[in-house]
Amino acid sequence: MPRILVNGYGTIGKRIAWAIKRSSDLELYGVVKTRPDYSAHLAHKNGIDIYVPSNEYIKSFEEHGISVKGVLEEALRKVDLVVDATPAKTGAMYKQLYTKYGVKAVFQGGEKHDIVDVSFNSLCNYDEAIGKNYVRVVSCNTTGLLRIICSLHRELGVRRVRAFIVRRGADPKEIKRGPINSIVLDPPTLPSHHGVDVKTVIPWLDITTAAVVIPTTLMHTHYLVIEVEDKANRSRVIEILENTPRILLVDSDKLGVKSTSELVEIARDTSRPRNDYFELLVWAQTITVNGREIVLVQSIHQEAIVVPENIDAIRAMLRLEEDKWKSIEKTDRELGVQHGWLL
Amino acid sequence: MPRILVNGYGTIGKRIAWAIKRSSDLELYGVVKTRPDYSAHLAHKNGIDIYVPSNEYIKSFEEHGISVKGVLEEALRKVDLVVDATPAKTGAMYKQLYTKYGVKAVFQGGEKHDIVDVSFNSLCNYDEAIGKNYVRVVSCNTTGLLRIICSLHRELGVRRVRAFIVRRGADPKEIKRGPINSIVLDPPTLPSHHGVDVKTVIPWLDITTAAVVIPTTLMHTHYLVIEVEDKANRSRVIEILENTPRILLVDSDKLGVKSTSELVEIARDTSRPRNDYFELLVWAQTITVNGREIVLVQSIHQEAIVVPENIDAIRAMLRLEEDKWKSIEKTDRELGVQHGWLL
Repeated sequence: MPRILVNGYGTIGKRIAWAIKRSSDLELYGVVKTRPDYSAHLAHKNGIDIYVPSNEYIKSFEEHGISVKGVLEEALRKVDLVVDATPAKTGAMYKQLYTKYGVKAVFQGGEKHDIVDVSFNSLCNYDEAIGKNYVRVVSCNTTGLLRIICSLHRELGVRRVRAFIVRRGADPKEIKRGPINSIVLDPPTLPSHHGVDVKTVIPWLDITTAAVVIPTTLMHTHYLVIEVEDKANRSRVIEILENTPRILLVDSDKLGVKSTSELVEIARDTSRPRNDYFELLVWAQTITVNGREIVLVQSIHQEAIVVPENIDAIRAMLRLEEDKWKSIEKTDRELGVQHGWLL
Repeated sequence: MPRILVNGYGTIGKRIAWAIKRSSDLELYGVVKTRPDYSAHLAHKNGIDIYVPSNEYIKSFEEHGISVKGVLEEALRKVDLVVDATPAKTGAMYKQLYTKYGVKAVFQGGEKHDIVDVSFNSLCNYDEAIGKNYVRVVSCNTTGLLRIICSLHRELGVRRVRAFIVRRGADPKEIKRGPINSIVLDPPTLPSHHGVDVKTVIPWLDITTAAVVIPTTLMHTHYLVIEVEDKANRSRVIEILENTPRILLVDSDKLGVKSTSELVEIARDTSRPRNDYFELLVWAQTITVNGREIVLVQSIHQEAIVVPENIDAIRAMLRLEEDKWKSIEKTDRELGVQHGWLL
């Protein structure tokens, strides 16, 4: 079974490690940590082998009672693929090390498109990642945009997208970030990087985006105006989304919810691991179709949405599965990723 | 000089009372308060006559050392016009009293369109309010939308607007409102009332809007996609906005700002009364023109933007000025409302 190393065990890394452990065709070789914090303790307790970037890091882990299995370069000699979940732009530095040891690498959206062979989204371009050495799973917002766009494009032909992205200010665990009372234009020019990033996966699309950052930690929310090739109708759009993996429709009438915090409460009440939504959540009652125009609002759990795409990317790169629908189906079954309607 | 009564002395009422005092052709007859709170003390201290809705209210004011000039019905016998700035939907109740005494009334955006003769925005339909008895100044978000739309429409012909509104959760003084960590769809269906409200002033427009409420108190922020009749270009759009009253362009590069909280800091540093922006603030670097499509982001000070429109509405209803540009110029000069570039 292919051995996978996860470099970085923060918000994304710990979820990918969990997902690899749940994947029947992948082996989690270990994780690379820099600090002996609570997540290192938890990994240790759960029997995950811990590696550190170099020998200098070992002492601090031992002082905290966490045994270190080895250093990164030792692990790279033994593994088939590394998932780089280090902080943004750190992956580019590590890439030379991965190359030195001939290890394939999956990078996250914080890295630049030009360090990889392919920027990736399972629904859009799984095939392009097959056998590749360096693949980048695009960021959470871009993943959310791509899921809805490629889902609609397959059936209706998407021509133009205008999107406004309301970003969470920080993740729940982040204590040093803001804003706490502001709407921050991100950036105060157009377009934001999200539309540009979508084009790294589907370069043919006419898309521009704008974004703001706001004082919330729970989820992003997008407003989309989508122009399709032929006249559509609402029930057809709902039907397409119902049948697309990794998209969940939210019936705000039935559930009596209208906010991201209530979505998280549902995740808690239904015992989702870490309250995670791997799915894109589309607010069903916002879906409005007028001729060739579709307008909708969707919410994205920034900590979790990219996890299934990371597993699919591994499978494509290692040629474990060449059929994208089969990989998606396997990932979703093994991780419990849903589609259709929330509840 | 026409005597104006302001019924309600909260966020909007106190600003309108201030604006009437600054208007050389209007007399502030008094304000109507229900509670002897800090703003009643301030009004009293500033020599503004205080009225109460009925005799039962007098005692609590006297207990707080605030002398009451009389009750609402006594004031209505003496005045030419009342500006109703009572809480949303309360104005509709008061309307019968205003009618009984034959007093013209300006209502705020919290009231329904069907209780008035005209819903009002100075740039869009000043003329329709001339001589009317009941006029409604639309809400802050709608005022912001109408200013940009009518400004562009006059020169370029606006055909279609799609807008997403990121609303502040509460005003700075409100201590009981939220959300404190959520993005709330307002409502979780489309369209939001804002687009519908725009059509009460300019019914011919193809507009839909969506909105969310978020944890901030300072300003609203809008994302707009506007389709105009003929191809436009960016410098023409900038020129139009530069020359429109009550619109200020924000040069985020020059000023080094990218958020609503920094806009408020500029208001504080430039000694604007109450840090208020009566102007619509358009983020210049977001203005993107592509053929017939204009995209931009704008911010709105929810507590203040409707104040100049209230003064203009009074002037139109009392036939003090039948030329809209002259009324706008007078209001803006006397209140210090700017246009062109912020700083």
